Amino acid sequence: MNQDPAEFTIVGNGLAGALLACALAKAGRRVDLYEKRGDPRQGGPQGGRSINLALSVRGLHALRDLGLEDVVVRSAVLMRGRMIHPVAGPLAYQAYGKDDSEALLSVSRGGLNRLLADEAAKQPGVRVMFDHRCTDVELKDGTLSFETPGGHRQVTASCIIGADGAYSAIRGAMQRLDRSDYSQSYLTHGYKELTIPPAEDGGWRMERHALHIWPRGDHMMIALPNADGSFTCTLFWPFDGPHGFSQLTSERQVIEYFTRVFPDAVPLIPDLASAYLTNPVGSLVTVRCRPWHYGGRAVLVGDAAHAVVPFLGQGMNAAFEDCSTLIECLGRQPDKARAFADYEARRKENADVLADLCIENFVEMRDKVGSPWFLMKKKAQLLLNKVFGKLYLPLYTMIEFTRIPYAEAVARARRQDRVVLTALATMAACVFIAFLQVIRR
Amino acid sequence: MNQDPAEFTIVGNGLAGALLACALAKAGRRVDLYEKRGDPRQGGPQGGRSINLALSVRGLHALRDLGLEDVVVRSAVLMRGRMIHPVAGPLAYQAYGKDDSEALLSVSRGGLNRLLADEAAKQPGVRVMFDHRCTDVELKDGTLSFETPGGHRQVTASCIIGADGAYSAIRGAMQRLDRSDYSQSYLTHGYKELTIPPAEDGGWRMERHALHIWPRGDHMMIALPNADGSFTCTLFWPFDGPHGFSQLTSERQVIEYFTRVFPDAVPLIPDLASAYLTNPVGSLVTVRCRPWHYGGRAVLVGDAAHAVVPFLGQGMNAAFEDCSTLIECLGRQPDKARAFADYEARRKENADVLADLCIENFVEMRDKVGSPWFLMKKKAQLLLNKVFGKLYLPLYTMIEFTRIPYAEAVARARRQDRVVLTALATMAACVFIAFLQVIRR
Repeated sequence: MNQDPAEFTIVGNGLAGALLACALAKAGRRVDLYEKRGDPRQGGPQGGRSINLALSVRGLHALRDLGLEDVVVRSAVLMRGRMIHPVAGPLAYQAYGKDDSEALLSVSRGGLNRLLADEAAKQPGVRVMFDHRCTDVELKDGTLSFETPGGHRQVTASCIIGADGAYSAIRGAMQRLDRSDYSQSYLTHGYKELTIPPAEDGGWRMERHALHIWPRGDHMMIALPNADGSFTCTLFWPFDGPHGFSQLTSERQVIEYFTRVFPDAVPLIPDLASAYLTNPVGSLVTVRCRPWHYGGRAVLVGDAAHAVVPFLGQGMNAAFEDCSTLIECLGRQPDKARAFADYEARRKENADVLADLCIENFVEMRDKVGSPWFLMKKKAQLLLNKVFGKLYLPLYTMIEFTRIPYAEAVARARRQDRVVLTALATMAACVFIAFLQVIRR
Repeated sequence: MNQDPAEFTIVGNGLAGALLACALAKAGRRVDLYEKRGDPRQGGPQGGRSINLALSVRGLHALRDLGLEDVVVRSAVLMRGRMIHPVAGPLAYQAYGKDDSEALLSVSRGGLNRLLADEAAKQPGVRVMFDHRCTDVELKDGTLSFETPGGHRQVTASCIIGADGAYSAIRGAMQRLDRSDYSQSYLTHGYKELTIPPAEDGGWRMERHALHIWPRGDHMMIALPNADGSFTCTLFWPFDGPHGFSQLTSERQVIEYFTRVFPDAVPLIPDLASAYLTNPVGSLVTVRCRPWHYGGRAVLVGDAAHAVVPFLGQGMNAAFEDCSTLIECLGRQPDKARAFADYEARRKENADVLADLCIENFVEMRDKVGSPWFLMKKKAQLLLNKVFGKLYLPLYTMIEFTRIPYAEAVARARRQDRVVLTALATMAACVFIAFLQVIRR
């Protein structure tokens, strides 16, 4: 292999790294792509855990640019709304939007990752190196150190793109520079996955076209449909305390607790107790940093720049949006340092706003979605949207079903709320005055 | 040397590490103390920069417990208040408190560090190792890796105390653990030091018993007196922009700028232009993390746990208060993990509050201290304190001249403000009613 470095060296062949490699190659640029894991095409799912992701319009847009939208949509399951599972009583369904154009797609992370990695490997301008774990980065001269099955290896990169996730080695090097802001902040909640297998006829054991939520106040379970008829359930519980993961230590306790708190799920998960006791608990981190680039030498995308908690299903969508913006900035501006600065200026504020929204939406999902007041508000918002069209877009709609930048969406939602409140107050005043006129007669 | 590890292994023989070693040794505990720099008693001031620090009651209390208060106070210079230097017009003096019990002490960092390091080295239970730079920490088994002039060295510690400052290696290891919150955040301002030498008769060229401030809105200069007749000036300016360090690149520009903005300082600093162009610009970081300990294996004190910006002069004082609290917790609770958890519970909230106060006080120092309204408010606060004694303590008084925990001080200041505002409103109402009575007659 020719050892001259390509124009771009991407560290991380995950969702963002592979997508970016494809997009850069299609723009005629040469890319070296390093990945710590082995080639996914040579093995089964990596790590043994099947995880699905919510794909929405921001992510779809980036896939469309690569001509991959259709194949992804075909393998996905449409989720048209939330299905709320109370402890007792009937299920409650809340549509996400006015029609199927406002719905989420449940996609397999492994499947999408393989598709993108395949596509990247097919590009003539892309060289892919698997089994390369980045252990050290010297930003000044672009030296990357890798641990490989064949031993230690060093390469010199002219321009590094850190697409290496929430625990990014590239960001680690940037963070050690003077005047580099950084924060990592964990939720007191963790997550654990369980599986609802397909029904015996191969179908789905619950409503297929919905994201299922069991809101329980301070904790919750959710389930996303998979194309094979199964659902992947995720428990979001505190690590410790009365509703914490650590409280359930025996099969009897697990069954007892689920029977009391998630009764309708118990018959759907045949290996409930053993899976609960075996499956690991993951932690949920929010990462922020600044700057996102080091001159024209290095830049961060996706989780490496801004890991968020998963409660809006926007992690991958935001990462893909980063990639689209970065490609655009590189296309407009031949000087890489300036292109990266433009990219950061356009994305950083939006990533910060998204991080806050994701944390806020956890409270919404685990607590508020169950309340009649919340349901009424959502219905009123969708009604206003139906009547006023694009003049009134609920915040959730703007985040999930438009490409309005996150920060702009939040600002716009605030303005809309002010207008609605003013209108309501004016209407109330009119009604009151009319009432006075009537009783005076 | 006996290679069995002592009960405690302190990394960092700076102010907090040395003080803690003394205090632990005096409580009958054995300590190994590792320091990356060479023995300060064998060389001059380390790093070539003489820095002074404001010592106040929290720090003095810890020194008193070691019998070192008197010797430190004798070598310090009392600062009874702020001396404000406007661009033009007379100086304005603001007393810190009601008398000399409410004053700050300007002490030499190098001098105090040598005194404490000496005192630590004198303790029979303390072994001191200089020239040991900690490069890696394995928290699980307590392995510490050091770089020494003689090569690489590993030691196994039973209990590690990280007193290794804002860029702590011990904290670095803790930060890599799951669910460890961490943030580093830099100001857009940096600092540069300049020196006003003693007068020809050996005296001070400005008022000796004051902390001098040249407030200029978005930037400032301050000067603290040294015992030798000199003052150490510190510029706190933005790195870039119209009042930034980067704007002045020639001797002519430096003299021109100072003559315009800090005119009375120009004749006092003979090497102004060359010192400005030569001396480095330091950055100002706030560090927060959680947890502060790893079971009973490791714990952080001082800047390693909570680096703050220097605008309240509380960095060292808070670090010494950490040490006093840690000693107290270890004395009460033989189980180290519990003692460390107690210590963190007592200190973490206060450190967080202090970090915010320090940033807020930068705005106060560089901008508000020059305004007549600020002066009036300060005078009114001191008057209320004089009339009501301990019933009314200004926030600044509580921070600098009491040992009331920082968080409690802030809560108490808020309560006081509410009472004062209510009293003022009541008085205004009474005056208004009396006025109505008078004009009715």
